[in-house]
Amino acid sequence: MLLSRVLPSNITLLPTFSNARAAPLRYRHVLAGGAITVPVRRRFAMTIQAREGSPVIDIKPQPLKLLDRRTKLKIAVIGFGNFGQFLARTFAAQGHEILAYSRTDYSDTARSLGVAFFDDQHDLCEQQPDVVLLSTSILSAEAVLRSLPIQRLRRSTLFVDVLSVKEFPRNLFLQLLPPDFDILCTHPMFGPESGKHGWAGLPFAYDKVRIGDSDDRVERCRAFLEIFDREGCRMVEMSCAEHDETAAEIQFLTHTIGRVLAKLDLKSTPINTKGYETLLNLVQNTCSDSYELYNGLFIYNKNSTELIEKLDGALDTTKKELFERLHGIFRKQLFEGSARISVGGGN
Amino acid sequence: MLLSRVLPSNITLLPTFSNARAAPLRYRHVLAGGAITVPVRRRFAMTIQAREGSPVIDIKPQPLKLLDRRTKLKIAVIGFGNFGQFLARTFAAQGHEILAYSRTDYSDTARSLGVAFFDDQHDLCEQQPDVVLLSTSILSAEAVLRSLPIQRLRRSTLFVDVLSVKEFPRNLFLQLLPPDFDILCTHPMFGPESGKHGWAGLPFAYDKVRIGDSDDRVERCRAFLEIFDREGCRMVEMSCAEHDETAAEIQFLTHTIGRVLAKLDLKSTPINTKGYETLLNLVQNTCSDSYELYNGLFIYNKNSTELIEKLDGALDTTKKELFERLHGIFRKQLFEGSARISVGGGN
Repeated sequence: MLLSRVLPSNITLLPTFSNARAAPLRYRHVLAGGAITVPVRRRFAMTIQAREGSPVIDIKPQPLKLLDRRTKLKIAVIGFGNFGQFLARTFAAQGHEILAYSRTDYSDTARSLGVAFFDDQHDLCEQQPDVVLLSTSILSAEAVLRSLPIQRLRRSTLFVDVLSVKEFPRNLFLQLLPPDFDILCTHPMFGPESGKHGWAGLPFAYDKVRIGDSDDRVERCRAFLEIFDREGCRMVEMSCAEHDETAAEIQFLTHTIGRVLAKLDLKSTPINTKGYETLLNLVQNTCSDSYELYNGLFIYNKNSTELIEKLDGALDTTKKELFERLHGIFRKQLFEGSARISVGGGN
Repeated sequence: MLLSRVLPSNITLLPTFSNARAAPLRYRHVLAGGAITVPVRRRFAMTIQAREGSPVIDIKPQPLKLLDRRTKLKIAVIGFGNFGQFLARTFAAQGHEILAYSRTDYSDTARSLGVAFFDDQHDLCEQQPDVVLLSTSILSAEAVLRSLPIQRLRRSTLFVDVLSVKEFPRNLFLQLLPPDFDILCTHPMFGPESGKHGWAGLPFAYDKVRIGDSDDRVERCRAFLEIFDREGCRMVEMSCAEHDETAAEIQFLTHTIGRVLAKLDLKSTPINTKGYETLLNLVQNTCSDSYELYNGLFIYNKNSTELIEKLDGALDTTKKELFERLHGIFRKQLFEGSARISVGGGN
């Protein structure tokens, strides 16, 4: 079946290519009111042929089914900082209706992203979004959730969080939300810096903590996850506990190394090695995230104290090995007269 | 002028392309006895045209001048380990005559690279190489140089080193070599891992410590440096002192971070962030180099002790900041009853 035959005449298919590793092939649907990018998975067979001088795109039926099944969601982003805006941009580009709330006035930013901004949580909740996405800092998550007038929401609302730790928001949701509310805990393992060239191939961890059995609840959760799936994210389902155990090492360690190196005030030089450039990039990437995120990773993850102590121990052991060898060489020189050390001298 | 018109009929020009950033375009000259890769710099205007079905390559005169001026060098590599072999491979591929000496028997490896292997330093020196390249570990450099029968070399021989520190071999050469010998201290800022896809764009630091005024000595030094220039290295002339001051931070820090992280036994996970993958690569790259190199970087660079203490201090400060904030939040909770911390709870 030719996709071009079933699409309205005002839709043009333009092939675009992402530069990331596992990038899906994308087709940009140019509609009257704007542009929507619809990724087409590699696993769908596809041929592009030129017939009578005009391009014809031939795609097997699966992608059409995917398009037909698309559900437009009304998503309320609570906490519209750097990360919330980063996510909202793609949500809106995919054609979802996005509302946003923040204590800070981000109405101009919201307008530029096609997002409706609310400075009053009651007004926002009265819009009865399908999904409430908690995108605050870890440290302010509880206070923000407690202040939300959830009685104005539909009782079946799906709550999602995108915090960098998972057991903490999971427990918070289970404690504070009435049992009718659905709960999905997620963690996009990327941010505005690492995801600036697209999300293809980047991991997205999620845990369906509490999703009701009815078809519409299952479908709503699926539709939300599909946002990331469509961008080419690597979808990884894992429990919140499993996430925290794995992610402590990954995130807290990476941020710690970045923040420690930042204190050394490293400079780029004319003779940078590849490894050194790696360190410079790490400093830039971790320090472009807020200190609040780093602090949250430390406080809300029970494995972080142990990890920083292990790191400290590893540095001590490394130093000890270096100094022991140095001592060994000098002793050899003193007692055997061989393996001379001569750093100075010459002219 | 058509290059094809001035080349012998048995030479075929095959365009090949390197994948590295600043890669020069290369043309492979297929000769009767083997293949020589001759890079052609981007700055040389060039057109490739198809005429009457057969490819014609049109190159302006400069590359021909470059080819004409090429000097074939006889280079003796002293210390034929991992790094010596890595360099010799490219030297030989460029058509230079390579001899090698090592205490370990690397005759099979040498044969596969087109290198003549010597297990006797006297035999090697009697071959009167144009260049003696010291490619030992930093720690064994002095012992190896002292054992070399330099009286069998021509008095004008050019000595080059490729050690990762520069003041130490510079002083060693100036102390131990007769004044007629030329001295060039160099440091390719890459290795078998970072340079495995070619050397294009990678920095090459050098210091012409003592090069005689005569044309042939100047030309020999130029011809040796051209080996790296032709591969597309970024050529950086700097004094040995300047190198060590800059490189201490770069190399010793990178290796230290890699070796410290190696002790944590990091695992790849399904939810690796980009930053974490950076750390995993760093561990792999630094630990594929010998511990002897790392130890040499520590011992023979006067800035390394200060740097490791600064690193230790930065980690302590980072920890202190985290614990102070944690204390601050708990005090606020105790005395003001706000900003509650609830990691546990729920179900």
